[in-house]
Order: sequence, then C-alpha cells, then structure tokens
Amino acid sequence: MDNFNFYSPTEFVFGRGRENETGKYVVKFGGSKVLLHFGGSSAQKSGLLGRVEESFKAAGVSYVKLGGVMPNPRDTLVYEGIKLCKEENVDFIVAVGGGSVIDSAKAIAAGVCYEGDFWDFYCGKARIQAALPVATVLTIAAAGSEGSGDSVITKVEGGLKRGAGSDFLRPRFSIMNPELTCTLPAYQTACGATDIMAHVFERYFTNTTEVEITDRLCEAVLMTMVKETPRVIADPDNYEARANIMWAGTVAHNGIVGVGRSQDWNSHGLEHELSALYDCAHGAGLAVIMPSWMEYVYKHNPMRFAQMATRVFGCPMNFENPEETARKGINEFRKFLVSIGMPINFEQLGAKEEDIPKLVDTFGIGDGKTGGFMSLGKDDVTAIYKIAVNASVKLNP
Amino acid sequence: MDNFNFYSPTEFVFGRGRENETGKYVVKFGGSKVLLHFGGSSAQKSGLLGRVEESFKAAGVSYVKLGGVMPNPRDTLVYEGIKLCKEENVDFIVAVGGGSVIDSAKAIAAGVCYEGDFWDFYCGKARIQAALPVATVLTIAAAGSEGSGDSVITKVEGGLKRGAGSDFLRPRFSIMNPELTCTLPAYQTACGATDIMAHVFERYFTNTTEVEITDRLCEAVLMTMVKETPRVIADPDNYEARANIMWAGTVAHNGIVGVGRSQDWNSHGLEHELSALYDCAHGAGLAVIMPSWMEYVYKHNPMRFAQMATRVFGCPMNFENPEETARKGINEFRKFLVSIGMPINFEQLGAKEEDIPKLVDTFGIGDGKTGGFMSLGKDDVTAIYKIAVNASVKLNP
Repeated sequence: MDNFNFYSPTEFVFGRGRENETGKYVVKFGGSKVLLHFGGSSAQKSGLLGRVEESFKAAGVSYVKLGGVMPNPRDTLVYEGIKLCKEENVDFIVAVGGGSVIDSAKAIAAGVCYEGDFWDFYCGKARIQAALPVATVLTIAAAGSEGSGDSVITKVEGGLKRGAGSDFLRPRFSIMNPELTCTLPAYQTACGATDIMAHVFERYFTNTTEVEITDRLCEAVLMTMVKETPRVIADPDNYEARANIMWAGTVAHNGIVGVGRSQDWNSHGLEHELSALYDCAHGAGLAVIMPSWMEYVYKHNPMRFAQMATRVFGCPMNFENPEETARKGINEFRKFLVSIGMPINFEQLGAKEEDIPKLVDTFGIGDGKTGGFMSLGKDDVTAIYKIAVNASVKLNP
Repeated sequence: MDNFNFYSPTEFVFGRGRENETGKYVVKFGGSKVLLHFGGSSAQKSGLLGRVEESFKAAGVSYVKLGGVMPNPRDTLVYEGIKLCKEENVDFIVAVGGGSVIDSAKAIAAGVCYEGDFWDFYCGKARIQAALPVATVLTIAAAGSEGSGDSVITKVEGGLKRGAGSDFLRPRFSIMNPELTCTLPAYQTACGATDIMAHVFERYFTNTTEVEITDRLCEAVLMTMVKETPRVIADPDNYEARANIMWAGTVAHNGIVGVGRSQDWNSHGLEHELSALYDCAHGAGLAVIMPSWMEYVYKHNPMRFAQMATRVFGCPMNFENPEETARKGINEFRKFLVSIGMPINFEQLGAKEEDIPKLVDTFGIGDGKTGGFMSLGKDDVTAIYKIAVNASVKLNP
C-alpha cells in the first residue's frame, strides 16, 4: 500500500425530502448570498428548484439564479457565472443538478477567486488556491461530483474537454434525495450507473500490490451496481434500489475506494474525446471504451482481472488459464452493459472509425505515454479505439 | 434505507513516516499551543514522542505534555487535562496512542469548552456544543477513535464505563503510520482486530432492509480482517497486512459502513461491563460477548446471519435450513477468534459466572429494553452472559 491522504469533508445529507433543508445547511456552512446554478427546465418544472428556493427564503438566505448548464458543461457559461458572482457579491454556490451542473459550479467557484482566466486550472497552467464554497442538490447518480474535488469542463472553441481538481472544490454539503432520480429515463440512469462503475474500475486496476481493503471496497460498490441497476431499469420508481445506487455513486468517487494505490484513468480520458467530438453521454462513451480498454490491457496483469471476474461477476476461476477467467469477466461486464441498454461499440454510440486519428490526436499525448496500470502510447490508444469499433458480447471469450 | 447524514471531515494522513508531519498539520488546522497527550512510557521509549515533538518544533508549535493514560481511560486524568489546558491556554490537543488516549483527549477537549462537569456528557446530562480541536497519531488499529466522534471514559468512583459522541469530537487530522503498530504484542493486535470486526457487526445486524451498499461495505471490511489478521499474528512486521488492518479499522468506525440503517450496540454495552469489572482488554471482552450475543439473537433474522456466514466466511448456504448456515457462520467467527489467540468464554477471559447479576445490574437497563436489532431486557442480557460462560467452538453447530 502506498502512502496517502484521504480527506472527504463533505456533509452528505441523504434521504427523502432532504432538499427542503438546503437553506438551513447553507447557513450552517456560512453562506448568505447564493448563486443557484442549474441546468434546463426540468428542475423548474418538477418543482425541485421551487422547493430549494423556499428553503432559502425560510433560512433568510438571498440568492441569484443562473440556469442553462448543458451536458458536457461549457466554459462560456462558466465565464458568465464568474461575472455574475462578482457583480452580486455571491459568497456560496449551490448546484442543483447532476455532474455537469456541479462541475460548472465548481469551475465558477474557483474562477471567482482567481485573477486570471479560470481555464488556466483546466489546461494545467495554474493550481487552484481558493474557491467559493460549493454545495449540491444532486439529481442523478453518476459523476460522483457531489463528493469529489474534481470538475470537468469543455472549451467550446476547439472542443477540448479537460479536468481540474482540488480539495477547495469539495462540496461543503450535498443533499441527496433518491426520489429526485426516479423520473430519470432508463438510458440516463444506465449511463450514470456505467459512470459509477467506471470510477471504481479506474481505481481497481492498479500496479500497487497488497491493497486488500480497497480491493474489497471497490468490489462492494461494483457488486451493488450489478445487483441494483437492473432493478431500477425494470422499475424506475424503486426508491430502495435508487438509494443504493445513489450512495454507491458517492462512495465510488469520493476517494475512499482508491486510496493507497496507483490508478489508471485512461478510460475516462479516452472517453472524453468521444463525448467532446460526438456530444454523446459520458456514461455511454464509457460503456464503449472501458471494456475495450480492459480487453487491450488485461494481459498486463491477468490475475487482477481474474479477481474481478470471480469476485464481482461470480465467474468460476480457471486455475489452469487465468487469462480465460479474465476475458470472461470482461465479457460479463459487456453483457451487463447490454442488459441495461448501453452501447458497447462505435456504431451503437454513433462514433466513426475514420475519426480515430482525430480522437487520438486530441487525446493529446503526442509521442509520450500515459497510464497508472499500463502505460499507453499513441499506437496503444489507436488499438483501443479500434477494439471499440466492433466490440461485441462473445459466446466463448 | 433510512434517511441519514454522513460527515467525516477528518484528514487521514496515512503511511510510513507520516508522524514527522504532525506539526505541519497542527498549523494547517489552526493550532498554536498543543496539549500532547499520551499513555505509558512506550511512546517515549520508541522515540515516537520525540519525533512528534521535533515536528512541533520544526513547525513553530509550542506544547505541554500530559502522559499516563491507562487502558479504559479514567475520568481522573481527564479532569487533570482540562485544568492543564485552561492554565496553559492550550488551543489544540494531539493524542499520541490508541483508542484510550484518543478518547481521553476528546473528553478533555469537550471539558475545556464547558462550564460544568465534563461527566455530564457521558452520563447523558448534557450535549457537547463545542470542543477544542483534536488530532491523533495512532499507534494501534482497534477503536476507530481516530476517525469517529465517539469517546468512552471510565468513572473511577463506581467503575462506570460510559460513552459520549459529537461531530465536535471528530479529529481534525489523524496520522496513521502502520509501522508504529509492528511492535504490538500478538494479543493486543488480536484484541484490536476483534474490536474492528465488532464495530462492523454492530452495524451489520440491522432491521433495516434494502441496504445492499452498506452490507457489501461491511463485508469488505470483515473479509479484509479475516484475511489480514492471521498474517500479522504470524508475522508481526508485515507492513502491508498492518496497513490493511489499520485502514480497515478506520473505515469500520468512521460511520461509512453503517449509514441509513438501524444498528445494535448491545455487544459493546455488554462488554463494557466486563472490562469495567475485570479491567480486561475491550477486544478480549468482545471476543467473548459478541458471538454469544449472536448465538442468542440470530433467530430474530436467520437470513441476515446466513448472509454473513456465506459472504464473509464462505459457508455453503443451506437453502433448506438457513438457521444452520447462520449457526455455522457464528461458529466460524469463534474459530477465527480462537485462531488469533482470543478468549471466547468467561474462564478464558478471567470472568466469573457468579458476577452475572452484578454485570446485568451495572448494564443499567433496569426493567427497560434496549437494542436496534433485537430488543433485549434484563433476562435476555442474563441469558447472553450465561451463553458466554461456557462458549466453545463446535464440531456440528
């Protein structure tokens, strides 16, 4: 196990009706003037935004509103938010929505406290040293942004999708009411579930040995997702399954399942190029990329994949041929993705083989290498995209 | 799943040599004058205390020292600590030690900020509204106090052992270097491991249904302990196994494995009477009481025990007789405890059957009932102590 720091100071406020307490928690964490940040009209129509606003009024908190966050949130709205916060002397940001809204709120929070261009944090030119306090009212279990210090923003000019991270961006509190996710269409629900599982896999495939506790915690989240996701796809109003998924989504990404070990976020990186180019859902892109990445890298450490196959998917261990067990696990993962309605190849996603050179180019490693499990160069990245083109569930993996 | 709040704001600073950063973190969290609280001479002799003091000097932090914390920490030293902190204008407490030292530090921290008698918090007369910031340098994986808001203190007069809890008592940071635990004798190591497992079991046996995510997280910690504990008993210097156990101990008790569900802390309560009367190690008392409690209550929900038996101990599921599977799981737990050198009955612990009425009396429920899984009255408590008298590993449970 490697040395590590683990710091997750967010207060998670979980359960039915908890959004009515938003104002109370803003006051608890020192806010008085809030930017209420949200996406499209659904939060308004559902009455959620109204309930949050009522809770502000009840708690004596004043606020300004900024809606319009799109999936794959854009730098343009972030600039608008920063300007608004400065003009209105906002001291607290509440994001009502999913990962996109929260990531946009985090970018605004960091940008308000920075003299330069907030994009500096995302292109690696500067490190976040301060940010307005952020809180969330979560409406989809997916990105884990409600419990993380991470944010991903897309620069409209050039279509670059890049991330930034800092403990300063960790939400002060996150309101998590699983009821709010019951109206989500099956496709979005499945995309969220895929993202959650990817957050675990990116931490699970490691070169660090002797990390039994985090391995087991990873497997706990994965097994929960394998059990609960089909239940909500079949029965969208199943509160209990929604609740298990929502909390699993936070545990998957607040850091606890990944401490003390090398991680490998190449699947997320490879996916970012897909969603930046095709504007597809992040989870759908991951469903295509993640198992393709697995198929390419599993020989680097077949036993780790065999462990996943047996512990998470219940595959029998083939002691004479662990590589077969590894392949079976990857195949089970693809089967699971298909069963919840996810695409698993380029055609199903709406991606094109001829774009691969472009995807590889914007992935941006040049002649370098990247990866905490298996180090990948340009040719490897190309090969993974190529696997993804025609990927399918196999009868004999 | 029940509504819940989860808040664990402690920064965990984990790994080799991290105690040399203690002073740096005191400054980060706003401390300038520290009470350095510790136990016996071992921290001094091992050089640990010296390294922590050096880190204070390097960071420009001044400090006063108060040693002498005993296992089952006493109110008398807490009063001394409160007095010292007030005289010396201490603004931060650093506990170097295990659960006893940390619990004592927490009691002092709460007492300093309270006009009345700190025992009010422990006997239920008052609620903690403020406390000095506390931090820890952990030397034994056991109590989980490094990541919890809980504290247990023994009142010398009358031998009462009672707990108090508050988010104000959650450590600001905890330094966790597994190397520091390598010198622990096997018996203490095993006591710690038992305590860690008990913290999970007390959360695992619940009447709340549909808590797959927390069930799986509980099982993750338990499986880790089952794997790693025998390794450190056989090879005390095994850093990796020590590291897995140490982190498992924190995860077991910072709250994350128990959110959203009823819990049942009767085993801890029943044990507290044993260690208060016989001054035995808390973990040893738990090894005697916990499986005896299980044996008494499992019929309340045999499937929950069968789940534990199959998932944690790998018992085959007997679909025609789940109660048998449940009993096998409890028996496997006792086998495990014996294998790591723990007592499992009164004689091995040094307890006496004739003291049972006294134990029941100081348990203090009178004619009432207590318990979040199975509600227990005086007769039930008596019956559990009686099971513990002659408990043994069985051939056919």
